[in-house]
Amino acid sequence: MTDPTAAHVTRFRVRYSETDQMHSYHHSRVLEWFGCGRTELIRSRGMTYREMESRGVMLPVTLAHIEYTGKAEYDDELEMAVRASMPSRARLRFDVEIRRVDTGQAVCTGHTIHAVTNREGRPIRPPSWLVELMRETH
Amino acid sequence: MTDPTAAHVTRFRVRYSETDQMHSYHHSRVLEWFGCGRTELIRSRGMTYREMESRGVMLPVTLAHIEYTGKAEYDDELEMAVRASMPSRARLRFDVEIRRVDTGQAVCTGHTIHAVTNREGRPIRPPSWLVELMRETH
Amino acid sequence: MTDPTAAHVTRFRVRYSETDQMHSYHHSRVLEWFGCGRTELIRSRGMTYREMESRGVMLPVTLAHIEYTGKAEYDDELEMAVRASMPSRARLRFDVEIRRVDTGQAVCTGHTIHAVTNREGRPIRPPSWLVELMRETH
Amino acid sequence: MTDPTAAHVTRFRVRYSETDQMHSYHHSRVLEWFGCGRTELIRSRGMTYREMESRGVMLPVTLAHIEYTGKAEYDDELEMAVRASMPSRARLRFDVEIRRVDTGQAVCTGHTIHAVTNREGRPIRPPSWLVELMRETH
Repeated sequence: MTDPTAAHVTRFRVRYSETDQMHSYHHSRVLEWFGCGRTELIRSRGMTYREMESRGVMLPVTLAHIEYTGKAEYDDELEMAVRASMPSRARLRFDVEIRRVDTGQAVCTGHTIHAVTNREGRPIRPPSWLVELMRETH
Repeated sequence: MTDPTAAHVTRFRVRYSETDQMHSYHHSRVLEWFGCGRTELIRSRGMTYREMESRGVMLPVTLAHIEYTGKAEYDDELEMAVRASMPSRARLRFDVEIRRVDTGQAVCTGHTIHAVTNREGRPIRPPSWLVELMRETH
Repeated sequence: MTDPTAAHVTRFRVRYSETDQMHSYHHSRVLEWFGCGRTELIRSRGMTYREMESRGVMLPVTLAHIEYTGKAEYDDELEMAVRASMPSRARLRFDVEIRRVDTGQAVCTGHTIHAVTNREGRPIRPPSWLVELMRETH
Repeated sequence: MTDPTAAHVTRFRVRYSETDQMHSYHHSRVLEWFGCGRTELIRSRGMTYREMESRGVMLPVTLAHIEYTGKAEYDDELEMAVRASMPSRARLRFDVEIRRVDTGQAVCTGHTIHAVTNREGRPIRPPSWLVELMRETH
């Protein structure tokens, strides 16, 4: 039996352009990485976020929460685990954990909440295929 | 009597490079803006964050929380109000609200929590001038 | 007699998020700054690039060339001078020079070339108001 | 016989955060990608740029030149080919070409020139292992 809350895992390296003068990654970049994690989780479930937008289903971020728990330097390989859920009928949530591959040390953890809207930014009822995608067992 | 929690206000415009294909600002950019807001608040209190770092006092972000409440497009002029506080002896907090200058509409609101460390990233006791700066009445 | 090639000058500070671990600004950020310079030059001539896009006139960058001539650190105040020209009927060019305000030291110099297209990315003949704006004497 | 000027090839996808309201990638991001390309080319030759910096050998960018030849949208898979050379004793050059994987269409092409300096930013004579790395036949 597979875990319905199974995380999708992707790996990437910290870019030089993502460092700042404190010698770790700049904390704003985490939100770019979270976006990559969502992109790959959705792809792993047989859809793409690109296709979703072309169907007129947008997922703008309404809330972001991040706890920074460890450093990560340029070229460090990181592992990002993303989980999807629907806290309510109209809200999507993605939980993310990022660790260093070499030491397993936590780098940061957080989540984003998303509305479901049409191209004009008006809330819409999530289509059934989206609900399915978010709840799907893997 | 002045308000000890008075906000420092700065204005800026959304850069073209900060937009994304949803036609608003990319949500990660808010954390760059918050950083500009802290920089200017500290300057307005007679210190600079640059000088703080050169004294070996670093303020790495340990938590960020953002609620996105409205759109802002390329070239929109925004007003950012920042407030400083010390929720505990070893933690700094900056609360930020961003609005559109033309309509007054809220764009986003959030806060960051910061540790106080030396150059090696070890927590240090906040020097008295920093405590003073954070509590100062304006 | 005013100089028809007069530069428009804007000032800004290097953001913390724009530094990298070499302690200067990351070299990619210069292209964001150039964009801000173009935005302000166009505004200074009574138009906005935002309005141009809403009229269906887009100026995608087709070439960028940058020479990095000096360092600039976090919080350094910089002065950016931008000049506009039309090297051909269908091409716009913006030349940019960035200096430190305190020392006058050169930071970088460069230019971008732009096509003039409609919303679909097809080249169009630059409307007369655009030609006027680019050649206007100030 | 292998080609001494053989390119190192890496693949990546355009991030959502890298798009702008023109629906392609923002042109400044190319310089971040070029940096990733250099990182991977150096790794493929048995060294890392991170190790180089820890030995006190820095390669700051002194010139960047980019020609934008095609669009690339969010989630498009791109292929980046990087070539290394030494145009003079004291200068390194990396040439880069980026194409879309699906259509093979060119996205952009360009190069960066780098000085070789110590940690303080003073030019140094490139160590022999660096000259070897740049000329190495693969």
